Amino acid sequence: MENEELSKLLHCVADGIISADDALLRIRQKPFEDLGYAKPDLHRGIRQGTAEVIYGEGKTPEQISGIASSLVKNGQELVLITRLSEEKANALDAKLHLDYFPDGHIGIVGKMPSEKVGKIVIATGGTSDIPVAEEAALTAEALGNRVIRLYDVGVAGIHRLLAHTDDIMSARVIIAIAGMEGALASVIGGLADCPVIAVPTSVGYGASFGGIAALLSMLNSCASGISVVNIDNGFGAAYQASMINKLR
Amino acid sequence: MENEELSKLLHCVADGIISADDALLRIRQKPFEDLGYAKPDLHRGIRQGTAEVIYGEGKTPEQISGIASSLVKNGQELVLITRLSEEKANALDAKLHLDYFPDGHIGIVGKMPSEKVGKIVIATGGTSDIPVAEEAALTAEALGNRVIRLYDVGVAGIHRLLAHTDDIMSARVIIAIAGMEGALASVIGGLADCPVIAVPTSVGYGASFGGIAALLSMLNSCASGISVVNIDNGFGAAYQASMINKLR
Amino acid sequence: MENEELSKLLHCVADGIISADDALLRIRQKPFEDLGYAKPDLHRGIRQGTAEVIYGEGKTPEQISGIASSLVKNGQELVLITRLSEEKANALDAKLHLDYFPDGHIGIVGKMPSEKVGKIVIATGGTSDIPVAEEAALTAEALGNRVIRLYDVGVAGIHRLLAHTDDIMSARVIIAIAGMEGALASVIGGLADCPVIAVPTSVGYGASFGGIAALLSMLNSCASGISVVNIDNGFGAAYQASMINKLR
Amino acid sequence: MENEELSKLLHCVADGIISADDALLRIRQKPFEDLGYAKPDLHRGIRQGTAEVIYGEGKTPEQISGIASSLVKNGQELVLITRLSEEKANALDAKLHLDYFPDGHIGIVGKMPSEKVGKIVIATGGTSDIPVAEEAALTAEALGNRVIRLYDVGVAGIHRLLAHTDDIMSARVIIAIAGMEGALASVIGGLADCPVIAVPTSVGYGASFGGIAALLSMLNSCASGISVVNIDNGFGAAYQASMINKLR
Amino acid sequence: MENEELSKLLHCVADGIISADDALLRIRQKPFEDLGYAKPDLHRGIRQGTAEVIYGEGKTPEQISGIASSLVKNGQELVLITRLSEEKANALDAKLHLDYFPDGHIGIVGKMPSEKVGKIVIATGGTSDIPVAEEAALTAEALGNRVIRLYDVGVAGIHRLLAHTDDIMSARVIIAIAGMEGALASVIGGLADCPVIAVPTSVGYGASFGGIAALLSMLNSCASGISVVNIDNGFGAAYQASMINKLR
Amino acid sequence: MENEELSKLLHCVADGIISADDALLRIRQKPFEDLGYAKPDLHRGIRQGTAEVIYGEGKTPEQISGIASSLVKNGQELVLITRLSEEKANALDAKLHLDYFPDGHIGIVGKMPSEKVGKIVIATGGTSDIPVAEEAALTAEALGNRVIRLYDVGVAGIHRLLAHTDDIMSARVIIAIAGMEGALASVIGGLADCPVIAVPTSVGYGASFGGIAALLSMLNSCASGISVVNIDNGFGAAYQASMINKLR
Amino acid sequence: MENEELSKLLHCVADGIISADDALLRIRQKPFEDLGYAKPDLHRGIRQGTAEVIYGEGKTPEQISGIASSLVKNGQELVLITRLSEEKANALDAKLHLDYFPDGHIGIVGKMPSEKVGKIVIATGGTSDIPVAEEAALTAEALGNRVIRLYDVGVAGIHRLLAHTDDIMSARVIIAIAGMEGALASVIGGLADCPVIAVPTSVGYGASFGGIAALLSMLNSCASGISVVNIDNGFGAAYQASMINKLR
Amino acid sequence: MENEELSKLLHCVADGIISADDALLRIRQKPFEDLGYAKPDLHRGIRQGTAEVIYGEGKTPEQISGIASSLVKNGQELVLITRLSEEKANALDAKLHLDYFPDGHIGIVGKMPSEKVGKIVIATGGTSDIPVAEEAALTAEALGNRVIRLYDVGVAGIHRLLAHTDDIMSARVIIAIAGMEGALASVIGGLADCPVIAVPTSVGYGASFGGIAALLSMLNSCASGISVVNIDNGFGAAYQASMINKLR
Repeated sequence: MENEELSKLLHCVADGIISADDALLRIRQKPFEDLGYAKPDLHRGIRQGTAEVIYGEGKTPEQISGIASSLVKNGQELVLITRLSEEKANALDAKLHLDYFPDGHIGIVGKMPSEKVGKIVIATGGTSDIPVAEEAALTAEALGNRVIRLYDVGVAGIHRLLAHTDDIMSARVIIAIAGMEGALASVIGGLADCPVIAVPTSVGYGASFGGIAALLSMLNSCASGISVVNIDNGFGAAYQASMINKLR
Repeated sequence: MENEELSKLLHCVADGIISADDALLRIRQKPFEDLGYAKPDLHRGIRQGTAEVIYGEGKTPEQISGIASSLVKNGQELVLITRLSEEKANALDAKLHLDYFPDGHIGIVGKMPSEKVGKIVIATGGTSDIPVAEEAALTAEALGNRVIRLYDVGVAGIHRLLAHTDDIMSARVIIAIAGMEGALASVIGGLADCPVIAVPTSVGYGASFGGIAALLSMLNSCASGISVVNIDNGFGAAYQASMINKLR
Repeated sequence: MENEELSKLLHCVADGIISADDALLRIRQKPFEDLGYAKPDLHRGIRQGTAEVIYGEGKTPEQISGIASSLVKNGQELVLITRLSEEKANALDAKLHLDYFPDGHIGIVGKMPSEKVGKIVIATGGTSDIPVAEEAALTAEALGNRVIRLYDVGVAGIHRLLAHTDDIMSARVIIAIAGMEGALASVIGGLADCPVIAVPTSVGYGASFGGIAALLSMLNSCASGISVVNIDNGFGAAYQASMINKLR
Repeated sequence: MENEELSKLLHCVADGIISADDALLRIRQKPFEDLGYAKPDLHRGIRQGTAEVIYGEGKTPEQISGIASSLVKNGQELVLITRLSEEKANALDAKLHLDYFPDGHIGIVGKMPSEKVGKIVIATGGTSDIPVAEEAALTAEALGNRVIRLYDVGVAGIHRLLAHTDDIMSARVIIAIAGMEGALASVIGGLADCPVIAVPTSVGYGASFGGIAALLSMLNSCASGISVVNIDNGFGAAYQASMINKLR
Repeated sequence: MENEELSKLLHCVADGIISADDALLRIRQKPFEDLGYAKPDLHRGIRQGTAEVIYGEGKTPEQISGIASSLVKNGQELVLITRLSEEKANALDAKLHLDYFPDGHIGIVGKMPSEKVGKIVIATGGTSDIPVAEEAALTAEALGNRVIRLYDVGVAGIHRLLAHTDDIMSARVIIAIAGMEGALASVIGGLADCPVIAVPTSVGYGASFGGIAALLSMLNSCASGISVVNIDNGFGAAYQASMINKLR
Repeated sequence: MENEELSKLLHCVADGIISADDALLRIRQKPFEDLGYAKPDLHRGIRQGTAEVIYGEGKTPEQISGIASSLVKNGQELVLITRLSEEKANALDAKLHLDYFPDGHIGIVGKMPSEKVGKIVIATGGTSDIPVAEEAALTAEALGNRVIRLYDVGVAGIHRLLAHTDDIMSARVIIAIAGMEGALASVIGGLADCPVIAVPTSVGYGASFGGIAALLSMLNSCASGISVVNIDNGFGAAYQASMINKLR
Repeated sequence: MENEELSKLLHCVADGIISADDALLRIRQKPFEDLGYAKPDLHRGIRQGTAEVIYGEGKTPEQISGIASSLVKNGQELVLITRLSEEKANALDAKLHLDYFPDGHIGIVGKMPSEKVGKIVIATGGTSDIPVAEEAALTAEALGNRVIRLYDVGVAGIHRLLAHTDDIMSARVIIAIAGMEGALASVIGGLADCPVIAVPTSVGYGASFGGIAALLSMLNSCASGISVVNIDNGFGAAYQASMINKLR
Repeated sequence: MENEELSKLLHCVADGIISADDALLRIRQKPFEDLGYAKPDLHRGIRQGTAEVIYGEGKTPEQISGIASSLVKNGQELVLITRLSEEKANALDAKLHLDYFPDGHIGIVGKMPSEKVGKIVIATGGTSDIPVAEEAALTAEALGNRVIRLYDVGVAGIHRLLAHTDDIMSARVIIAIAGMEGALASVIGGLADCPVIAVPTSVGYGASFGGIAALLSMLNSCASGISVVNIDNGFGAAYQASMINKLR
């Protein structure tokens, strides 16, 4: 594995993705740093093309600050922190200069890429799905993708969705986000000719069972070309959508 | 309760629904006959406007024949038998002169009403949902309703459904039947201005869990005006649709 | 679809449901307004006979105020807001002149229709089911229906239900609301000759699983003529009941 | 434990339940015989007042014959075998002189008690529940109880149940057996003043989930005085009902 | 039904259970009082031998006070209120002179019966099950039964249970209360020769699923003579146990 | 929609995907043919870039033959039939000249594309997952993709997977197929830098619950870049993988 | 990893576990053979101390024969095949000289070890659990362990278990196998001072849900020192028990 | 049982595990003390080699203090209290001189053993699993075992785990702790040659269902030699691991 990693790293240098000096630095490092409570992955950028992301839930502000600092110290330019509550965001080490986006519970250390490529459409069934959608949209933007937001286009008033057929037909990948019965994914899947990643949300009550109804609905879609991520997993959908959007 | 039943019965005579002689006969009878293994309800036609129906599953051919004979003997003109397998249909007492409809697993003793009223639209998501749809359609027709069949109009190709907007907009009540993710009910619910009764079917595999995915989807529909019956319960949907269709 | 909507609109003018001036206004508008976080449906009254309703849960007071204002501005006379907590109700834009009904968590902008038609009976198994029942009752009244309330008539003391046989036999549609084992729906379904819409509630503990026991009970009812809506969905039951009650 | 068992045994002799000779024999035996594949409990009659019962499912005919022979050899007068298919019944050792009851899948070695005491009412919701009811009825009779059968008295036609109020009010214990939504138990529980043991059955389809709907319904009954046994467990209900019926 | 109720009432007078004056009063009343939010059952004492009980959860202090006052006013001597939180107990109408038992969340209006009969053994698997056990014990005592408490005798140290074999063998009925895996019921069921009512509790974590593990365990017990009530339903177990204990 | 479809069609002509004559023919046709039992979608090739696929399960041989003939008659060159049992394959209309692939239960009318592009890696955890993998592999090949098969590389012997790191690192998209605990998807997701589509299979027993364990495992993967399709849905994974693989 | 494997191999030679010649042979081989449909692990004996085992379910006789032959050819002395039906056993390649054990559905190529060490007690709740117990017992014996069988010692007659206290107290590890409510594991766990591995079985009906009740019961055991394997997984329990039994 | 206990006790004296004086004291005591709300097991140290442990959840500080005092008074040197919140720890009887470990919610009365034996490796998938891991680690250390902590070595970056192959290969027993999809257990199970005890944690969201996904994943592991304990049950895993680690 050593050789392969090295070869990938050198290709990154050749392609100008990282500098020769940074490459040198990384070759000298272990592929992860051991903080005791965490072992941040310093080579993921090389191995998978996207740098390590911090999942904020279940970690203390001290742990998040420690991991983020380790990543920054090791040369990662943008550190994305997901599922970060406003309280925790305020409690992070001030030296990180965090930008906090409350709608999507996202924190960013470093700055958003200015150039964005391709086209990812993010559609929601209703207004209540927006927090998940913003987690997805901000993640996709942080990873350098151009994002179109189509919110509240659920199938109860299908003309609202049909009014945006142009966006749907010109997307490279679509993220369809819906709670309750999650039918949005099937309808978009039937219209679009690009991959659709469906995100069930925990929006609903009673027999929606915290998103299970939407999840099952999406897994059983009669439309082809749809795959599904975990309930409320806006980040995961955006991460894969970014991989797809950037394929050449 | 005696008085009320009697009053209803007399109104039925006044309205010509049953003859004075039949009324006399019924007044003299007990409200059910005790066959030991079953107690067929002889007054349901009076009490609820629709005569006793026999659910065929889990009964032997001898039991079905016995109940049907009791109902005929007590003056019921059309006996509907649901969930009747072809084998059992063949094993029933020949004196019943049963008409058997294999597509919907329905048997009828007596003859279908010639006059049919109103308009019930029955739509299915796919071809595999047709057995449930036929159970519903034949039940509705046996109860005297006019039925329009729209089969294989699932949301994966939504133009197939939109091509029948006229039928949907002119229905008095719609039965939406679908397996897999059951999104058909929500889309129809968003278009129609009449009550929609949704029937989840056990069509599907894997995480459809024998119809649970469609059932949950329909219960959580973001469209208003939808109610739901049990998985594969074409009969139940048609029975209620008939009640609604006949309201004046 | 354009033509059909137009035709419906003109019929509404002809029937005096909306004025010619309002009709003119609507023809000039897009069928929905895009607020970014929501796309309120301005033509639903034309398309489905009932104006847009706002589901308050999961929306901020600002979003609810924005949507309600948009609907009012576009000529909708009564705006119904469901699942509205007392806190949110107090935080809404004062210009809306909201009437708040705490028992059913319902807010109304505009005024209740003075004339009410038909007869919808709303029955509950117990005292604890009243919040769901009031959501249904207020919705039905806001939509112009006459409502009879029968509360705490559960089957543990069946004489309490039998004492109201008159109401049950004279209803055009019944909403049966119960938690725990939900048997009320079956017993009413066996007595009534009109459609019964069953609403399971999350009342109960242990193996009631937040309403699942009642939901399954109602879906499997041995009585015919019953359909079911989501757990605690008083609004949905009333919406469909109103559609049925108004059929001519 | 030795002393207590001995004391119970001597009381049985004193009460004439077993003879002095039999008692002597038993005192000399081990409390169970080890057949390798089974260890039949030879003292249960002494310890619990009811002799060992053989659950036939999952055992080979050879194993059943072996256990039954061991019990007979050790002085047990009536051996009850439940869940015994007709095929297995035919394959049992002929020396056992088995009486087979196909309706309840029960086999009996020895002869039914001629004297029967008390009054156990066994009611079913429908005709399809009869096999479970017969398992209960035959078990109760084999254990020496008087049984009243009320079959097909489900709540969809509640007058059929109310017509038997006398039996319900005079029972010492009632077994209420129903599939589908299982509401029968609640209605009987609301009427009766004796203990009610509810038996959910696997009768039903779709969202009845093989008896879960009825099981949950019965566990959540709003009526007091009801307890529940496993799905289709007619034997278990009858065994406990017999214990209760014989209390003095 | 009229006649039967009357006959029961007169027998109650004959047996001295209620006075002739009280009987007169009751004959003149309707069998329930309609408070709007509740319809307390005034004849249950006659019909089922035990007076109406108030389930406190989900009712407001005003509603509880209202129902209790109605029962007292109509001659019920002891009013049992279950699932009554300490806050609500303090908020009840002071005129009721409530006795509150915090361990079992039970409130009593009137006074505990001084004479107690029979023998109900109440056993728990652990210390954490005591609140459910006290709900059962206080209910049973309020209904006039003698109660033996055996707490913390779970199967992890089976000698603690075996040390109380005497109590188990001399009980008329046993209530076995346990969370986690609920094995206590099976072990007691294997030892006892009287009916065992099993109460699963929500004590546990992880895969105990709020009592489901214990519930399933008890429903599937390999021991005979066991029936089960809802999770944490100490009241229900005690109510049925009282019925059984008082059988003569 | 008319215009857009037309525009897409003309682009297809311009790109040589379909001939001018075929285009002419299609413009003259309705977008679907109504066979009564089915409404095959004749424009999906234009709308979504991939022609209509027939799901064989739950359809009769006559229905499958009818739909396939309709598609062929309307100019579709390759008709893919999935979930086709060997018996049904033999019963299809001989004029279709079907090629049947028993390992993946796939039938093909027309011939496999000779040119294949890109690189889709299909990996399975075990030997028993091969039927699902072959459904995916044949679908992907029928849609014109190059496929690499890596079978039996489950995590119990992780060196078998690591030995194929080259294939994993050079794939454009990977389909990870596994039953039991489905950990394969997470491990591949941690190694690869391309999108991974996970397919849970129903392989396993006991607590695998027909694939639910693997499904949940894949939905909750700690690795990023993974999305999931329904249990055993090799077709769906391949369909989306093909969309991704062909992105330029 | 190369070095470590080599070092382990050389230690095996030093300890006489494998011969120098065999070691040489293995060093020259790849760590697995690629049969296309399977990649048998040839180094597992070195890596994990126990040679590769073949899980027979879901594999064809040809595949099983191929894998077994590959293992034998590469020097594995005893090949264990689990979940092997009698039909498949008969269809295997005759050259394998398979010994088949129908009680546990186990096939063995090579011969059982003559020397057996330590003491593993295998206990079952009932007679119907024996097939799972034999899978465990034969696996443990094939891996060189001494096994004591205690069958049908379920808690319904706890004296049967207490009669074997000696075996339980002297075991190095115990496998407790039970279906229904699975209480056996807790009771043994409370008595024993060695590790207990619990195996839930699918024996039972109704709310046993194919072993889920027993599984949950065992996971929630109030006794310490118990861990659990999958439903019916006798092999897995025996494999781990063997690891534990052989620790020095 | 008396004799056996005595014999074990005398062996403990012979092996120097307890002093002759302590032995004398214990022989004179009852095997448990009855505190009313609890019956602490005073002989467990003799019977099972490990003294009684107090599960803190669901007990009041008074109850915990009472049980701990009883154990100390009866000669138990180290009392372990698990699931002890910081609030309760502060509220315990000060005379107990409790040491509190907040990371694992563990309290200890007495002092940690200074000598530790063997090697138990405790690995977690992520940082959020540390509380469960510390419950396990502290328990294992309190029982006298040497513990190696490997935290945050989840499979999303498998090189972090492979970097600790030495620890894994030299462990006597491994505890693998993971939430989300729980794949860590399978990967470790495939690498290690010692028993692996898997602990699913409730870490995760959406379809992780509070640890069910990880639990199912671990139960269905394709690797051999793995058994599983309840969700978040670090204590239970450590208790069994200690039993295994100390086997000679």
